[in-house]
Amino acid sequence: MNNKTLMEEDLTYIFHPCTQMKDHEKIPLIPIKKGKGAYIYDFDGNKYLDCISSWWVNLFGHSNDYINSKIKEQIEVLEHVIFAGFTHKPAIDLAKRLVHITPEPLKKIFFADNGSSAIEIALKMSFQYFKNKNESRPLFVSLENSYHGETMGALAVGDSGLYKDVYSDILLKTVQAKSPSLRDEDEALEDMKKVLKKYDGKVSAVVIEPLVQCAGSMKMYNPSYITKLRTICDNAGVFLIADEIAVGFGRTGSMFACEQAGISPDFLCLSKGITGGYMPLSCVLFTNNIYDAFYCDYNEGKSFLDSHSYTGNTLACAVANAVLDIFENDNVIEKNAEKIKLISELTKPLANLNNVKEVRQRGMICAIELQGYDAKQRIGLKFFQEALKEGIYIRPLGNVIYFMPPYIITNEEIKKMVSVVERLLLCNNLSKGVLR
Amino acid sequence: MNNKTLMEEDLTYIFHPCTQMKDHEKIPLIPIKKGKGAYIYDFDGNKYLDCISSWWVNLFGHSNDYINSKIKEQIEVLEHVIFAGFTHKPAIDLAKRLVHITPEPLKKIFFADNGSSAIEIALKMSFQYFKNKNESRPLFVSLENSYHGETMGALAVGDSGLYKDVYSDILLKTVQAKSPSLRDEDEALEDMKKVLKKYDGKVSAVVIEPLVQCAGSMKMYNPSYITKLRTICDNAGVFLIADEIAVGFGRTGSMFACEQAGISPDFLCLSKGITGGYMPLSCVLFTNNIYDAFYCDYNEGKSFLDSHSYTGNTLACAVANAVLDIFENDNVIEKNAEKIKLISELTKPLANLNNVKEVRQRGMICAIELQGYDAKQRIGLKFFQEALKEGIYIRPLGNVIYFMPPYIITNEEIKKMVSVVERLLLCNNLSKGVLR
Repeated sequence: MNNKTLMEEDLTYIFHPCTQMKDHEKIPLIPIKKGKGAYIYDFDGNKYLDCISSWWVNLFGHSNDYINSKIKEQIEVLEHVIFAGFTHKPAIDLAKRLVHITPEPLKKIFFADNGSSAIEIALKMSFQYFKNKNESRPLFVSLENSYHGETMGALAVGDSGLYKDVYSDILLKTVQAKSPSLRDEDEALEDMKKVLKKYDGKVSAVVIEPLVQCAGSMKMYNPSYITKLRTICDNAGVFLIADEIAVGFGRTGSMFACEQAGISPDFLCLSKGITGGYMPLSCVLFTNNIYDAFYCDYNEGKSFLDSHSYTGNTLACAVANAVLDIFENDNVIEKNAEKIKLISELTKPLANLNNVKEVRQRGMICAIELQGYDAKQRIGLKFFQEALKEGIYIRPLGNVIYFMPPYIITNEEIKKMVSVVERLLLCNNLSKGVLR
Repeated sequence: MNNKTLMEEDLTYIFHPCTQMKDHEKIPLIPIKKGKGAYIYDFDGNKYLDCISSWWVNLFGHSNDYINSKIKEQIEVLEHVIFAGFTHKPAIDLAKRLVHITPEPLKKIFFADNGSSAIEIALKMSFQYFKNKNESRPLFVSLENSYHGETMGALAVGDSGLYKDVYSDILLKTVQAKSPSLRDEDEALEDMKKVLKKYDGKVSAVVIEPLVQCAGSMKMYNPSYITKLRTICDNAGVFLIADEIAVGFGRTGSMFACEQAGISPDFLCLSKGITGGYMPLSCVLFTNNIYDAFYCDYNEGKSFLDSHSYTGNTLACAVANAVLDIFENDNVIEKNAEKIKLISELTKPLANLNNVKEVRQRGMICAIELQGYDAKQRIGLKFFQEALKEGIYIRPLGNVIYFMPPYIITNEEIKKMVSVVERLLLCNNLSKGVLR
């Protein structure tokens, strides 16, 4: 077994996510044999530093010994049980811990399997909250340049043409307000006020990805926007949904991004890092006020009856508890501060390069936006290929290179990661499209 | 720790799926301490035979030794890696095996995390197929009484008022044709022809749950409907999506329900049993013709860019491979035939009882529909409570009691399961509403 034979076998059967399969006529698909710590290893003996945490999910390294030990314990006892009418200790422990570490008014939790499903639950629950009070509010407001997932509800509140435009005839119409990541903050806030006034009484919720619009080219904005947005939503009487699927669990420097704004959303959606990159799990936290709107005699017909078969999956909850153990035992947020500082020191000077438009960073997310390249050149793909040759795995979004490493990355590995990208930025050949 | 203390702790934090939480003021929520084989055990020392496979997912028992051994092997090597640009052996093996055991024209696979997400992928892919050929076909046709999941696209193609009505203002409008589970087969086929003629050129796909509309009160219909529907879809030039999320992996007696109709759908959605009840995983299989419609130069803009972070999760794929191993090594489909026969023999006589409207069975799914009870009596809930006292866990859908046990259930356990329900059916007190 080597890379080539496995790649060929894969391409016979598999359609990969977010991939134009024809690209693999030129770009090798890489079969990964094993993962350990911050590294993944292919079948040809190459190893790569996983600088994007395997799509923003891995926190404490691949095949983490502590998490593995907890999985082994759990499967010997209970792998899964139906979560309607029944419960189990891993879910109770996880729910309690999440309620305790998220902002004060968030008191209840609903589990699901992936980020998209969590967004769907927040949308459905916010809509039904008003419906249960005899109001129909069919609109949702999100930000320009936003991304919230791929199922049809989640896709509808996104603003990425790349993922959404082709489906416009089958998606719910939603409203996008100006984004503070692209505009002046005051302009964005004024626009939000205008939108909520225009659709007064029709909007169930505003949904945002706090601080970093990750799939939206890692565009960033300040906590102050969120603080003010909270007041605007309160004044307009609409819910605020915070999509912390990518930015939660320490990614932006604090455990949750909303903390930096000193506010709480009405719904908080979590996934990705929640299992440290091991397996799918998501959840939505919300207030008791929301919970109460669904609490009534069954025959009143106001129940929230959403479900997925694996809701509250026992194994995934056990893994999530192991992840929270590591956060507590290893003082992760504090230790990350040092790494965040080092990444900042190393990447800031890159902003002076001719082909760099901006270097921006929020905690463990650092993005380098390039300039002077035509979109059709797919310069990001070239950076991916060249960095890989040096053992550095990055996955640029268009012309935005970014780092979002596992938290166990060492200072030496951070230095290597940045230096490889720096060298490529300085390499004239890249801009000339030599690397086709 | 006992049931009561854990229940109280749970109810402080958790909103359970498909549950009116107020019900738990009267009905205890049961904390499960461990699972082994066909049984789950609570914290007060009670054990229950899991007669519905923990929501139709468990196939080979809880905490299955073989599956556990495969999980332990896998986590030491690779728990997960990004599935865009990279791949891994468990996914390749699983894809190859699934393509080989599903109907011939299904050649490619796309992974996701839960059943709803699989349905969303089939809907989006079928719509975009036509869009890539410059046609917009915004309609989907499903059957009366159907259920396909909870995310907004999946919910839109369902027909269950209980789950869907409250959201009608925010769901895509779809068309429902008459169901062969509620009507004469010819009438249903004629209606489907009429619907497809009426919306000629506007329909992307017809979606069905083959043989058993599971969440639709376990209503059943014959393979001949599906065989004829295949021709109708071909003649109308629309895709046929088979939702085998609940009915796949042996549930209806054959490995996949479509086999009994001797046809292949264009899209086959799988989940639930795919991991033997261990953890979320889903996938969609489809034809090379469909695959080819998305295969082009990236800049042509015809890519199918759906993704979830954990798409192709390594651990889940390893578990699914273990499940397929068991099917092969233990000759499961053949062995189930005996159990299916026994369930049939034991339950058929129940049809003669006054309060039984119908006993119907398709493979390892057997439903007993009650009559003479008012919906507000919630008679199913009473059966649930009483059966539980005798160590039998069932979860009736309204006034339909059903069995969908794990395949490892023994003949003795089948006898116990049926006899407990039989005794309750004969108990006059139940109909008088004594068990409030």
